Amino acid sequence: MSMFDVIGFDADDTLWHSEDGFRANEEQFVELITPFAPDGVEVKAALTATERKNLAAFGYGVKSFGLSMVEAAVTISGGRVPSTVVAEMVEMVRAQLEEPVRLLDHVPEVLAAVGSTRRMILITKGDLIHQTHKVTTSGLAHHFEQVEIVLEKDPETYAGLLARHDIDPTRFCMVGNSVRSDILPVLSLGGHGVHIPYPILWDLEHVEHDEHFVELASLADLPAWLDRR
Amino acid sequence: MSMFDVIGFDADDTLWHSEDGFRANEEQFVELITPFAPDGVEVKAALTATERKNLAAFGYGVKSFGLSMVEAAVTISGGRVPSTVVAEMVEMVRAQLEEPVRLLDHVPEVLAAVGSTRRMILITKGDLIHQTHKVTTSGLAHHFEQVEIVLEKDPETYAGLLARHDIDPTRFCMVGNSVRSDILPVLSLGGHGVHIPYPILWDLEHVEHDEHFVELASLADLPAWLDRR
Repeated sequence: MSMFDVIGFDADDTLWHSEDGFRANEEQFVELITPFAPDGVEVKAALTATERKNLAAFGYGVKSFGLSMVEAAVTISGGRVPSTVVAEMVEMVRAQLEEPVRLLDHVPEVLAAVGSTRRMILITKGDLIHQTHKVTTSGLAHHFEQVEIVLEKDPETYAGLLARHDIDPTRFCMVGNSVRSDILPVLSLGGHGVHIPYPILWDLEHVEHDEHFVELASLADLPAWLDRR
Repeated sequence: MSMFDVIGFDADDTLWHSEDGFRANEEQFVELITPFAPDGVEVKAALTATERKNLAAFGYGVKSFGLSMVEAAVTISGGRVPSTVVAEMVEMVRAQLEEPVRLLDHVPEVLAAVGSTRRMILITKGDLIHQTHKVTTSGLAHHFEQVEIVLEKDPETYAGLLARHDIDPTRFCMVGNSVRSDILPVLSLGGHGVHIPYPILWDLEHVEHDEHFVELASLADLPAWLDRR
């Protein structure tokens, strides 16, 4: 008998590219704001600090990032940045929200292979409209028994979600790129995790830990790994 | 036998105040931006038009409203508004997100009365973090079998949600302040609606229709109305 009843998949940077879009917007922010910043100010670090400060109130996602950019632009420049430059932040948000989904390699065939013998659910956090649009336009929604867009990927959220879907945590395996959000909270419930790193990781997802779990170099390795369990 | 198996409740402006907070921020926006607007520009109308334009990309909620304020401030003023004034929009968003929930009259006792003999679900649209915070801090979450935060309250969304919870639409009754979002889509599925108007309605929720449905002056009238069905 297989070890797992249900496989959970993260979405951003696990099924499709996401963090590279934020990174490109951060770089554009630094370019736009540096001319108005006093010498010696670390523009990128100040933006990240603003995001960190706002996380509890604003939550995850592109719109929160946009509001933090607006705030940081004015703070860093001491109000010297023209409002026309600030308005560009809104356009950066819009472009990111409207950008077509860019799937990672191997995603459709891996989901087809894993889903042929197992229940699968998608668990993603972030902006409700952005995540919904990405799920529906990705053409992948039909693979998943359920799509869950959650506020925070903590043990409490996973526990509630697994209970609601009548899933035994010890027979659940979560697949994702973030150790902090996809792996550690599931392990803490007695579940399993497969970490598949993405080349870049958001500063606020970095975590120190001494847990042991499986890491695969590519999503393409997942079906064979599961078949051996 | 009762006519209904499940009662659905809207949240914003049905269980707690919401639109008055947006209205207050709109008025503050008009005060802040009018000094920088050319004579003859309708500042409030331009803001609403910006919100309408952005709805499909940004979705509902306070953060979308904030980004639309930033965009409209710069557009209306032709870039003459100082960025320090634009940064106040972010603070308005933060204040609205962090404001304690203000329950409408009679809400706890009505939910206790209705819930004593019926299943109840909460169905709300808007910002994921804002709606979640309001639900959890309201002290009302325990009344509801399920809390659903949705992207759009259209027939498709209601149909999917009712199917997922195994609810017969003809034995479902939705209670809310918005004819467009709470009543018409449920009627279109063969369900029932009880309209309880709130003193103010967002421009984008206005709808023309010739449907007939029940309207109650106050949520306090709901238990007796349900008991007669």
